[in-house]
Amino acid sequence: MNACVYPGSFDPVTNGHLDIIKRASRMFDKVIVAIVHNPNKCATFSLEERVELMETVIQDMENVEVECFQGLLIDFMRAKKIRVIVKGLRAISDFENEFQMALMNRKLDNNIETVFMMTSERYSYLSSSAVREVGRLGGNIRDLVPDAILDRVLKRLLNKGD
Amino acid sequence: MNACVYPGSFDPVTNGHLDIIKRASRMFDKVIVAIVHNPNKCATFSLEERVELMETVIQDMENVEVECFQGLLIDFMRAKKIRVIVKGLRAISDFENEFQMALMNRKLDNNIETVFMMTSERYSYLSSSAVREVGRLGGNIRDLVPDAILDRVLKRLLNKGD
Amino acid sequence: MNACVYPGSFDPVTNGHLDIIKRASRMFDKVIVAIVHNPNKCATFSLEERVELMETVIQDMENVEVECFQGLLIDFMRAKKIRVIVKGLRAISDFENEFQMALMNRKLDNNIETVFMMTSERYSYLSSSAVREVGRLGGNIRDLVPDAILDRVLKRLLNKGD
Amino acid sequence: MNACVYPGSFDPVTNGHLDIIKRASRMFDKVIVAIVHNPNKCATFSLEERVELMETVIQDMENVEVECFQGLLIDFMRAKKIRVIVKGLRAISDFENEFQMALMNRKLDNNIETVFMMTSERYSYLSSSAVREVGRLGGNIRDLVPDAILDRVLKRLLNKGD
Amino acid sequence: MNACVYPGSFDPVTNGHLDIIKRASRMFDKVIVAIVHNPNKCATFSLEERVELMETVIQDMENVEVECFQGLLIDFMRAKKIRVIVKGLRAISDFENEFQMALMNRKLDNNIETVFMMTSERYSYLSSSAVREVGRLGGNIRDLVPDAILDRVLKRLLNKGD
Amino acid sequence: MNACVYPGSFDPVTNGHLDIIKRASRMFDKVIVAIVHNPNKCATFSLEERVELMETVIQDMENVEVECFQGLLIDFMRAKKIRVIVKGLRAISDFENEFQMALMNRKLDNNIETVFMMTSERYSYLSSSAVREVGRLGGNIRDLVPDAILDRVLKRLLNKGD
Repeated sequence: MNACVYPGSFDPVTNGHLDIIKRASRMFDKVIVAIVHNPNKCATFSLEERVELMETVIQDMENVEVECFQGLLIDFMRAKKIRVIVKGLRAISDFENEFQMALMNRKLDNNIETVFMMTSERYSYLSSSAVREVGRLGGNIRDLVPDAILDRVLKRLLNKGD
Repeated sequence: MNACVYPGSFDPVTNGHLDIIKRASRMFDKVIVAIVHNPNKCATFSLEERVELMETVIQDMENVEVECFQGLLIDFMRAKKIRVIVKGLRAISDFENEFQMALMNRKLDNNIETVFMMTSERYSYLSSSAVREVGRLGGNIRDLVPDAILDRVLKRLLNKGD
Repeated sequence: MNACVYPGSFDPVTNGHLDIIKRASRMFDKVIVAIVHNPNKCATFSLEERVELMETVIQDMENVEVECFQGLLIDFMRAKKIRVIVKGLRAISDFENEFQMALMNRKLDNNIETVFMMTSERYSYLSSSAVREVGRLGGNIRDLVPDAILDRVLKRLLNKGD
Repeated sequence: MNACVYPGSFDPVTNGHLDIIKRASRMFDKVIVAIVHNPNKCATFSLEERVELMETVIQDMENVEVECFQGLLIDFMRAKKIRVIVKGLRAISDFENEFQMALMNRKLDNNIETVFMMTSERYSYLSSSAVREVGRLGGNIRDLVPDAILDRVLKRLLNKGD
Repeated sequence: MNACVYPGSFDPVTNGHLDIIKRASRMFDKVIVAIVHNPNKCATFSLEERVELMETVIQDMENVEVECFQGLLIDFMRAKKIRVIVKGLRAISDFENEFQMALMNRKLDNNIETVFMMTSERYSYLSSSAVREVGRLGGNIRDLVPDAILDRVLKRLLNKGD
Repeated sequence: MNACVYPGSFDPVTNGHLDIIKRASRMFDKVIVAIVHNPNKCATFSLEERVELMETVIQDMENVEVECFQGLLIDFMRAKKIRVIVKGLRAISDFENEFQMALMNRKLDNNIETVFMMTSERYSYLSSSAVREVGRLGGNIRDLVPDAILDRVLKRLLNKGD
């Protein structure tokens, strides 16, 4: 079976992430959205919240699943027996970091392949940190995150600092 | 009237910032230098100090004013009824971040336009953080900040850590 | 008066160019679209055609005019007594070339200032050469060039090689 | 079935191209290497030669086929009923051009998806034009092109100018 | 005598650093590896550890020495009477930061010259922070750091957070 | 002895080239400026003219010599028994091409090392092609090329098309 992993912190999931998930789900038989749990980094949304928001967003997509992982991504992939990582590229600034990470992952396990997909140009300005900042300052984040989670994201951002 | 806002943290103002302010003041009828106050971020120079340094620097420029703002830049601009943001570009590394921020501001308010001006190539290496680092380590920051504030900046940097 | 020049070869004008012209016309009292005539370079559309297409496109914009120039852009600007050049940026690849050209123009005449405006992200993929190539190969260039000139551009591209 | 198209001019095929073909063939059920025929551009190797060299190189790869196309890539893909384009990225300079081309292809047909794969870092310096230049000047192109075609490529380069 | 300084934090030294040291030692009569001690930044490896690891790594290279410095690099260089800084470039992302730092150093002392050397493409993905992250998560860092220090680096990473 | 080669087409030599030659001459015992002769490319200045202009420019620099070469740069270097190539970097756009070329040269001969030096920021906009274009259009190229060759360059540009 032709499966891929789409990893990230999704703090929170944005319309840009959703765009990539939809594109990947049309190209692969199965897409596992892998939410990284890094105990040393302080996320704005807890792991449970991030999973719940993601599950809300993908609930109508049959071949997409949500999982968490801790540690090296390649260990997660070996455990899942999946060889393909999908990453979204918005602009050139993404490219450099993603490229180095992909080369490192290939170095760590030569069977792992990273493929890059382009986020829609409509979301080229969009990132989780931009959503957090705009939301906290009282800006309009409609169109930045999926409608189904808009209220929960807003409520969270207005109640909590980083 | 043809006015613009030149936003930044100016921690402290450098000769590169001053270069852009001068260029903008020749192109626009009025330039508002908007110093951002972010209560969650720790600036080296206090808001009051940053305002005072800026006012010293622009005192002979008739069509330039200094103001502070908190929150979203576009809310400040709407309150001032100004549609144009001016940003300085020194090099390609500035470009990426500024471009994403400008796209986001346009998304938040389609009437807002960002225009980019080039800093003089003489200042292509210059940033507030470089001034802070060089000053603290005892280096010569003459030519990096305007003469009129040199002593105050130096004194401050040698008395305080980040 | 607050005027600017928007220079280019416009071979042919695209929706991306039109986007910048509209933005500039809201920011400046007067916009002169300056079509460069380079006798040593072979354009697909003749100078007359390029002027005519541009005039069709801007006919409802009161503060926009079309002119041609030959030779150095700064000589044209001095003759017109205009100090501001407007350039559109689509992506980072534009940035490098435009930056060097703007530095050179500033070197040639220190009174000339180049300001960069961002093309809408909807047109980030769009260039005159892409229009020419897609059109010649029989692709759909609707949405790539303004509707008012679509037929003329298509007809021209299907009748002539580069 | 899960198929992709890997387009290019392959003038001639290099070890970098072969690296991408191998990676794609492990990820997709079928890979069609699509050699573009552009009657207006002068290739060093004729279309027939380029096809023959490619066929030699892929002869042991069961799910890889070679085809030619003329005109728009998306028309070729529609005819083949394949939705995925694979492109190799070596470095950031590739990225910009490929990104704009991919956005244009998506604009022309929203069902077409481009995925980017990373060439092995061992081939980050490698391009068809570099092979042609080094070969013509009498340099050693072993390791730059597949062994199976080394002699034919060399012979051709030493007998013909661009 | 023709000497150079190769500065860095080396937290810890990687195979990429070692690659540059070897290249520099073939080009200069003497190479001083200058390990920066920044009391305000928290390194994973202590200054003593970083020096010791570096000395282990260069022990067979006759014209290479290790020293520490605190404060401005140019003050260290003046004290040593050395005019040339060597920096390694792995990719474009390095370039921007290094370029600005080199311009600043030239501004601070016009006699100082920075020369950039290319790290082997085999190490283009490699950085001290990547080594720390992979090591801590239990990944294989063999090939990322010199064999002679592999055990000490691993032991350290598995016993200590950032 | 510690020698380097500074290769280029120098069509014509600019103040940016001269800046690099001066910097290299302070760092190396001997600098050979290697002017490439490419019979397939049409230079504006003949090989003889380019050599003559360069010799005029470097006449007071004792450890700099001018030579021509044809074919692969690495063959020239082997013949001269020199291992170091010096290249000037003005900006990020230079970087990409130069990096690929340097990797290719290292691949062709692992003993060859390329070092990059930074052109003064005063010349970041400067290239031979810019000099040719500005000069032909009647612009002022003083400050762009060394004074000693200004008249000859101008005369040549005004008498000859590309």
